[in-house]
Amino acid sequence: MFKTVLIAGVGLIGSSLARVLRREGLAGEIRGAGRSADTLRKAKELGVIDAAFDSVEAGAKDADAVFVCTPVGRIVETVGRAASVMKKGAIVSDVGSVKSTIASVETPDGVFFVPAHPVAGTEKSGPENGFAELFEGRWCILTPTEKTDKGATAVIRRVWEKAGMRVEEMSPERHDRVMALMSHLPHLIAYTIVGTAADLEEQTRNDVLKYAAGGFRDFTRIAGSDPVMWRDIFLNNTDAVLDGLQRFTEDLTVLQRAIRRKDGAALQEWFTRTRDIRRRIVEVRQDTPESEKLLLKGKK
Amino acid sequence: MFKTVLIAGVGLIGSSLARVLRREGLAGEIRGAGRSADTLRKAKELGVIDAAFDSVEAGAKDADAVFVCTPVGRIVETVGRAASVMKKGAIVSDVGSVKSTIASVETPDGVFFVPAHPVAGTEKSGPENGFAELFEGRWCILTPTEKTDKGATAVIRRVWEKAGMRVEEMSPERHDRVMALMSHLPHLIAYTIVGTAADLEEQTRNDVLKYAAGGFRDFTRIAGSDPVMWRDIFLNNTDAVLDGLQRFTEDLTVLQRAIRRKDGAALQEWFTRTRDIRRRIVEVRQDTPESEKLLLKGKK
Repeated sequence: MFKTVLIAGVGLIGSSLARVLRREGLAGEIRGAGRSADTLRKAKELGVIDAAFDSVEAGAKDADAVFVCTPVGRIVETVGRAASVMKKGAIVSDVGSVKSTIASVETPDGVFFVPAHPVAGTEKSGPENGFAELFEGRWCILTPTEKTDKGATAVIRRVWEKAGMRVEEMSPERHDRVMALMSHLPHLIAYTIVGTAADLEEQTRNDVLKYAAGGFRDFTRIAGSDPVMWRDIFLNNTDAVLDGLQRFTEDLTVLQRAIRRKDGAALQEWFTRTRDIRRRIVEVRQDTPESEKLLLKGKK
Repeated sequence: MFKTVLIAGVGLIGSSLARVLRREGLAGEIRGAGRSADTLRKAKELGVIDAAFDSVEAGAKDADAVFVCTPVGRIVETVGRAASVMKKGAIVSDVGSVKSTIASVETPDGVFFVPAHPVAGTEKSGPENGFAELFEGRWCILTPTEKTDKGATAVIRRVWEKAGMRVEEMSPERHDRVMALMSHLPHLIAYTIVGTAADLEEQTRNDVLKYAAGGFRDFTRIAGSDPVMWRDIFLNNTDAVLDGLQRFTEDLTVLQRAIRRKDGAALQEWFTRTRDIRRRIVEVRQDTPESEKLLLKGKK
């Protein structure tokens, strides 16, 4: 599909994509670029990339495709730098978790930008934690604008379909509104409560960490996600996150009031409704059974 | 260890305990009692219990030990009803997730009550979802008072050790304070945000459910837990939960303010701190690797 591909940012997502390109034979040469020489070295040692470049421009020059897999905060700049040196007909795409601030980036005539978001990941970071199966059965959302080239969009769609993803298109604004509720707000809340526990008086804090189980353990896993990636997400999807946060706080206040008034009927009704939602999500097969998770991990 | 044991409430925990008693040969006859005839029938069909009793008194009479595995709201009453007919020297214990409202239950002379909380579970309910390995490597917290019999406490400790649990003792108040932060509050928050998503305008809600991934999927799993069990927990650990909720809300407001002001440094600092906490928890081996999870599921 491509003679030469550059992955700008060979972390969890970038290195997993590189592994897919290799497995599917979609690229002759897979190049890596990034700000961390250490990360690039690791990726090369792992055989994830064939060549490491210390500048995006050097790696993007004469590449057929560039995938920008940096934290959201550096995507616009990195796409611009790559596009500035890319040849006519080449495609640059990204994997950013926020799209409104990215989708409308301008590129030189004949260099095509396709904004994309493969909705996949783990709380781990770095090329050593990537694996080709990370994307399997997950959604990839493309957010093309009226300026986005249809042919280039079709090419990027095929890449993520080869990765095992179900690909859909929607507007950047709709994407960001959905992600705010579905991913950004839950992460913010997990980050919050884990921080709350860390501030407890010592005995209680040590007990919480020592006996950590059930809900809290799940929250700490979420709150173990990459700090820079998530900082950038909240700085780039501010309005949608703040709106979701407002709705959440109102609902939490309702439940707090029910607990204070010992209104068991209200609590049970609420909890029953959320359990039905869980069932619906499992029915639409958006959750991964443990067995599949192990399979994926095993294939790392 | 026991000639005859009654499990009052053969749901997820009760049926898993019954499977442990069977596997370890700790009981000659394993009886079940409960309010749902359907649940009792299932447990008997599964071979989890040898005999089903429609009243706790009938099953507790002449039993050497009774384990009350009902929702928290019915534990005090059920322990009392069992103890009222139990023979001298017999032991009644429970598995309640809240202890302050339970630990001080009075029993007739010679019938020993040992308040216990095996900290284990899944979001599933019912005897068909129980499995003997549910407790392995988890903590079991005993909350004996000055009135609790030392010998009986030692017996119950051995039962949970046979289940593979690490057993510790602490005061009921300390237990409830820790659980409020570590388990009850995270569940309340997960219940809240899943409910928030359910109230969104239709397109956004359907998108959230359709694309559910990452954080939100974890939350829906937590929010899929048994509504009655959790209603009772919040009605019985009200003060500790409300206190934790207050701390959480304050911290969330701080992060909300940082997002609104686009204070990236504050966000990154917070997220880095929570990641360190995650690392500490993984280091103390309180989290279960996927492989072990599959092993447990496979053994169901």
